[in-house]
Amino acid sequence: MRAAVDVMGGDHAPTAILKGCWEAATQFLDPAGDSIILVGDQEIIRQGLESSGLPADRKALFKIVHTTEVIAMDDSPVEAIRSKPDSSIGVMCKLAAKGEADVVISAGNTGACVAAAQLRMRTLPGVSRPGIAVVVPTFHGPVVICDVGANIAPQPRHLQQYAIMAGAYAEAVCNIPNPRVGLLSIGEEDAKGTAIVKESRKLMRDEPLINFIGNVEGRDLFKGNVDVVVCDGFVGNIILKFTEGMAEGLFQTIVSEIQDSDPELLEQLGPVMKKLHMKHDWREYGGAPLLGVAGYCLICHGRSDNRAIKNAIRVGKQLHQSGINAKIVESVKKSIPSEQ
Amino acid sequence: MRAAVDVMGGDHAPTAILKGCWEAATQFLDPAGDSIILVGDQEIIRQGLESSGLPADRKALFKIVHTTEVIAMDDSPVEAIRSKPDSSIGVMCKLAAKGEADVVISAGNTGACVAAAQLRMRTLPGVSRPGIAVVVPTFHGPVVICDVGANIAPQPRHLQQYAIMAGAYAEAVCNIPNPRVGLLSIGEEDAKGTAIVKESRKLMRDEPLINFIGNVEGRDLFKGNVDVVVCDGFVGNIILKFTEGMAEGLFQTIVSEIQDSDPELLEQLGPVMKKLHMKHDWREYGGAPLLGVAGYCLICHGRSDNRAIKNAIRVGKQLHQSGINAKIVESVKKSIPSEQ
Repeated sequence: MRAAVDVMGGDHAPTAILKGCWEAATQFLDPAGDSIILVGDQEIIRQGLESSGLPADRKALFKIVHTTEVIAMDDSPVEAIRSKPDSSIGVMCKLAAKGEADVVISAGNTGACVAAAQLRMRTLPGVSRPGIAVVVPTFHGPVVICDVGANIAPQPRHLQQYAIMAGAYAEAVCNIPNPRVGLLSIGEEDAKGTAIVKESRKLMRDEPLINFIGNVEGRDLFKGNVDVVVCDGFVGNIILKFTEGMAEGLFQTIVSEIQDSDPELLEQLGPVMKKLHMKHDWREYGGAPLLGVAGYCLICHGRSDNRAIKNAIRVGKQLHQSGINAKIVESVKKSIPSEQ
Repeated sequence: MRAAVDVMGGDHAPTAILKGCWEAATQFLDPAGDSIILVGDQEIIRQGLESSGLPADRKALFKIVHTTEVIAMDDSPVEAIRSKPDSSIGVMCKLAAKGEADVVISAGNTGACVAAAQLRMRTLPGVSRPGIAVVVPTFHGPVVICDVGANIAPQPRHLQQYAIMAGAYAEAVCNIPNPRVGLLSIGEEDAKGTAIVKESRKLMRDEPLINFIGNVEGRDLFKGNVDVVVCDGFVGNIILKFTEGMAEGLFQTIVSEIQDSDPELLEQLGPVMKKLHMKHDWREYGGAPLLGVAGYCLICHGRSDNRAIKNAIRVGKQLHQSGINAKIVESVKKSIPSEQ
């Protein structure tokens, strides 16, 4: 696998990004087939590589592609891609488009990543719009949610394709055979939901390529009765950030409550809470794939640290080896055409 | 306060509903000014009242209005209201419309409650569409979310009015002076969100009657920087059920993790977890008000037990005493008219 990594994007770039790359090189990259293209300021990257402490055979895994521009976290995505042609994000996607990288990884501006991937890498044959999928850990196992922000006003055809693509992802990366796919709505009945939900439901219900279980509600995500949840990017993004805030808030509440009633208990609980926090930590799951683009694009959290970047590289390798893009193209070709 | 309670609605009706009423009568209802109209099958209610063990002066708080029809949880709301004219929900709302009840309370079919309240009680002067508000407990205090399911495709004017109404509710019932109001979206910037969110933002930004702080994201709910979150009923309902499922799932995970590592610790933790669970339990907050109807309508969770019903009666009394409907009418009259 040849991965291009955006060294300049993210709250902790470039230091944490580079550190994550060095860790991947030490822990699981294989000099026989893997390499990483570090995209960004060559001076920073060279200095980082020199002081990385990596042995020569690991250093040899890295190539450098120099870029002079950086897209800021608050830049307007499409505008930034057009006005900053030599940005690390833009160049990374061009490398993928030219076939020089199999996977692109960035913790930078999410909108710009989506825009650059769509513009430069293009969508897979038959795919109308890419969607971002995330894995949410639950008591009953991982649940994949798609889309969480690439497409805030999707058409039914897009949601049908998200079901196909996220299903393939759940199977390939989360090892869930024949994943159960649900459409997020406000009630199980056919009549519940917005016009788009109702139309999408029809399209998904008739689609033999997915194991469609019907509408699901917010609480079903935690009940172990659904593996893939399809929704529009507006709802998905809100839920994603809500989950993050709620998990942090709940841990904070628990710690504070125990602190008040029995401070000694808090010390005893320390290791368990740490373990739990790890399990529920997005950093463990690396980046979120932008499904449907020609190549593999992993979008990482803006707050990504070295561990998150290392894990994103691991997921990138897994995606590349799974060859799910070929399966997606095949499925989309066979899928029921939308009437629209 | 004269409250009409739907004895027939909810998963645990009629027993738990009646039990909640008896508790309210014992704990906080005042024979000098309070009374409860029990709406439903008179035989069941009479038997319940007889075996309630309440003293005569408390029994005197209750009147009975007999109804012969029940709207099921899965009945189609508007259809059920029209085809079952003698349903407990419909009759309850008629009592309010005739001025015979100040507050109506039901744990039955939410859609039917909304439809009946809109059709029979009508909206307050100037209010375009009612919205359901819920209180979500967070580490930093309560946050009010409106709407959570009455209006799944709102216009900007509706969201502007939800901001005004939910703000008045936060002030009157949660004791939050000058509550900070945020519009739920997928980023803080003006340019982020759906077309409806962008239009609503403009309307809310210019509205001097609310303390508008701009767009908020899912995670802001748990950070203590917003008191009232305005959103469409589709997103709001999904989030509400998501919160419920996630809180339960997280508690389950924590308990199971501690059980695995140190079962003795679990016993020690018991009381703290119980306290925490109470704090995060929707039953403590009673029903959710349908803001904007002429009268006070509290919609309770389908799974409501006696405690939830008792607390809903308490909130009903608080709402009636606060006189927030008069304030809402006043504010809506003064608010910026929508261009639509």
